[in-house]
Amino acid sequence: MSADKHKGQQAFVDEVAQRVTSGDRPWLEESLAELHPSDVADLLESLDDTELQVGLLRALPAELASETLAEMEEAEDAGDLLAALAPQKGAELIQELQDDDAADLIAELEPSERELILAELPAEEAEELKDLLLYGEETAGGLMTTALVSIESSLTADQAIQEVRRQGRAVEDFYTVFVVDREGRLVGTVPLDDLVISDPDKAVGDLAEPPVASVLTDVDQEEVGRLMGHYNLVSIPVLSDQGVLLGRITFDDVLDVMEAEQTEDILRLAGVQDEEEVRGTWAESVRSRLPWLFLNLVTASLAASVILVFEEAIDRYFALAFLMPVIAAMGGNAGTQSLAVTLRRLTLSDHAFSDDAWTAVRKEVAVGLINGAALGTLAAVLGVTLAGEPLLGVVVLLAMWANLAVAGFAGAFVPTLLSRFGVDPAVASSVFVHTFTDLCGFFLLLGLATKLLL
Amino acid sequence: MSADKHKGQQAFVDEVAQRVTSGDRPWLEESLAELHPSDVADLLESLDDTELQVGLLRALPAELASETLAEMEEAEDAGDLLAALAPQKGAELIQELQDDDAADLIAELEPSERELILAELPAEEAEELKDLLLYGEETAGGLMTTALVSIESSLTADQAIQEVRRQGRAVEDFYTVFVVDREGRLVGTVPLDDLVISDPDKAVGDLAEPPVASVLTDVDQEEVGRLMGHYNLVSIPVLSDQGVLLGRITFDDVLDVMEAEQTEDILRLAGVQDEEEVRGTWAESVRSRLPWLFLNLVTASLAASVILVFEEAIDRYFALAFLMPVIAAMGGNAGTQSLAVTLRRLTLSDHAFSDDAWTAVRKEVAVGLINGAALGTLAAVLGVTLAGEPLLGVVVLLAMWANLAVAGFAGAFVPTLLSRFGVDPAVASSVFVHTFTDLCGFFLLLGLATKLLL
Repeated sequence: MSADKHKGQQAFVDEVAQRVTSGDRPWLEESLAELHPSDVADLLESLDDTELQVGLLRALPAELASETLAEMEEAEDAGDLLAALAPQKGAELIQELQDDDAADLIAELEPSERELILAELPAEEAEELKDLLLYGEETAGGLMTTALVSIESSLTADQAIQEVRRQGRAVEDFYTVFVVDREGRLVGTVPLDDLVISDPDKAVGDLAEPPVASVLTDVDQEEVGRLMGHYNLVSIPVLSDQGVLLGRITFDDVLDVMEAEQTEDILRLAGVQDEEEVRGTWAESVRSRLPWLFLNLVTASLAASVILVFEEAIDRYFALAFLMPVIAAMGGNAGTQSLAVTLRRLTLSDHAFSDDAWTAVRKEVAVGLINGAALGTLAAVLGVTLAGEPLLGVVVLLAMWANLAVAGFAGAFVPTLLSRFGVDPAVASSVFVHTFTDLCGFFLLLGLATKLLL
Repeated sequence: MSADKHKGQQAFVDEVAQRVTSGDRPWLEESLAELHPSDVADLLESLDDTELQVGLLRALPAELASETLAEMEEAEDAGDLLAALAPQKGAELIQELQDDDAADLIAELEPSERELILAELPAEEAEELKDLLLYGEETAGGLMTTALVSIESSLTADQAIQEVRRQGRAVEDFYTVFVVDREGRLVGTVPLDDLVISDPDKAVGDLAEPPVASVLTDVDQEEVGRLMGHYNLVSIPVLSDQGVLLGRITFDDVLDVMEAEQTEDILRLAGVQDEEEVRGTWAESVRSRLPWLFLNLVTASLAASVILVFEEAIDRYFALAFLMPVIAAMGGNAGTQSLAVTLRRLTLSDHAFSDDAWTAVRKEVAVGLINGAALGTLAAVLGVTLAGEPLLGVVVLLAMWANLAVAGFAGAFVPTLLSRFGVDPAVASSVFVHTFTDLCGFFLLLGLATKLLL
């Protein structure tokens, strides 16, 4: 809502920039105090000048400034700003944050910058952050916060609510109350709403339900998202190998993960490495895209080299030079369709009970045969019209038909095979599929023409 | 967790199928009672036979059976099963569900089937469901549940907790308590955790914070997801034009929406209409894909017709027949990269404060020029080697270079332009971009060759 108020108002950004330059702290505090940190983060990103950004962060109250850093779209940029602040100020902001956000920010710093800020923190907090930094960034351990509300199963609902009140002051948005045994092992969860509406004398152990799902620290973030989505969980507990409750991951982290994974999936399918940020520089883009284009140059050249063998056919029927790229392009398009559907099926697949890979491949080949017959007929008419040779129509029909069946097969089979071998199918599939369809398109068209027409 | 236990156990599916056939209800109830409805839904989908599926639903307790239907991946299949049950049994299951899930299920039925089930419901419930069915399926009204906990702002925290206990028994997972005035207009929210840990005598009106965000009933679901992700909201209130609180949307609905939108984005980019279900039949796939392929046949033929003009050049330098598809393919690949990055930028863009479309277009052109120079040099070496004509190298270099710049421009400009005109850029962009790069690739290579070599 607050964002809409300023939508498109470059004037507001300019005014903020000017007030930062003139050091008008009261105006800044007053104008921005009511904004959500996510909106202040947008504003900060729009300033587009490190000096102004640092100035704005300095002018804001520590709580708002720290949340703003945590809500920035590019964690790397947030890290750069944190590093640009004095270590003492940086440490002050870090202390305001929940530990998972603090760890994420600190993780963006160079080791030397990191040490400077950690040195300014109380020893205990610094240790806790260092522990969190040991987990892989894209694992459950890297996502979790250790801030949670847990109560022993022997308490009554009423005692538990007192305990929740006590612990809850320090914990944001806890939603679920975790129930543990004396050794800290998770025995179940009680939704806060159930606790509030339950009989006050009931033992928490009796209210607790076994956790629907839990994860170990090294579980991949994509699996965490899949589990939380599958079971509609607002938070998921993270356990040690011994079952001791270490932390929790909340739905908002998962929304961020899903957004990031979605970007990754679409970009990878298009041959953009996930390291390229959507708002990255041109140099980052070149680094991220050139290797893929180079690989495609090699495969496209290999596929096209088939053409060199069939010079005679093209000399005789020049319409083939026109039909070649058309049939290859249609194979590529149909292959991309099959590939996209198959990739989504693989991603969404949480069917623990069955395996329908071959059914899917058969379906894609069938679709290719039907579409190929329809498009092949059209292309054949085109070919006969151009070349005035009826047999060329047969060649075109057969080539298109077969190429679309190949496209369906490759589009469904290649990603399934790759994912069986543990390779991310989004990255490698498309180059395989396109090489297949190019190669088959050229070879079928020109080979059949040579066989039937020369 | 429960799903993992049975992972890959087709044997379990077979046993369930057998017990359903033999009518062994006690075994089914006992074996499935501990499973999460999402897992029972997976099992149900694995049975793959309507008679068995209906038999299983009949054998389950109504609460589990209804949740299972609501958790099925394809709402259409869930609707078919609901229709296959006796109307009385169908109504029993519908009554067990929260109203938004009930409405979603009922919406899948044919009007005549719908009437049969609504007739079995208490009049008031039937009316409520009919009201919900009036909202568009992909709008906030279509997503919201009217089951929520709202309290008047004049109550104390302690009174409010009593009221929450009373209302909360009928409402699942309410998380947030909404505070309204005497006319039912939303004045703010109190997270349940704040209410529990607050001073019992404090007035709720003082605890309430203005809602971070709210939506009207006709807001698109994608915008709902964006707002909830942006502000990390566990639920968002849905208001009438007068500000009266009508319902709420919870994060789990948004997780489902995000998954669906992600599928839609990837499939559309690949030219698969979103109506095609990932698990659809081959006939649905043909209907969804053939129009796109047909459109591409037309555009690919138009682009390739350029080739027909340059017969003389290809006759003289047959290497051109090999280079043509290579340069067009590289343009297509580079265009797809720019397109994917731009589409994600447009989707993620929640920058209310600035507008960087032209910066992005310039960046993509710059990336194209650099990648084009690198790949053009390689392709030139290839061309000279094949044709033994140094000038052909110059032709290839210039053609590749220019085509990749065109690809960068088209990949960034076309989707931006389409989205300015309110057209979904994911659907239409790729055909434009590929036609551009094909056309330019053929024309530049053959035109330059004719000019410089003949």
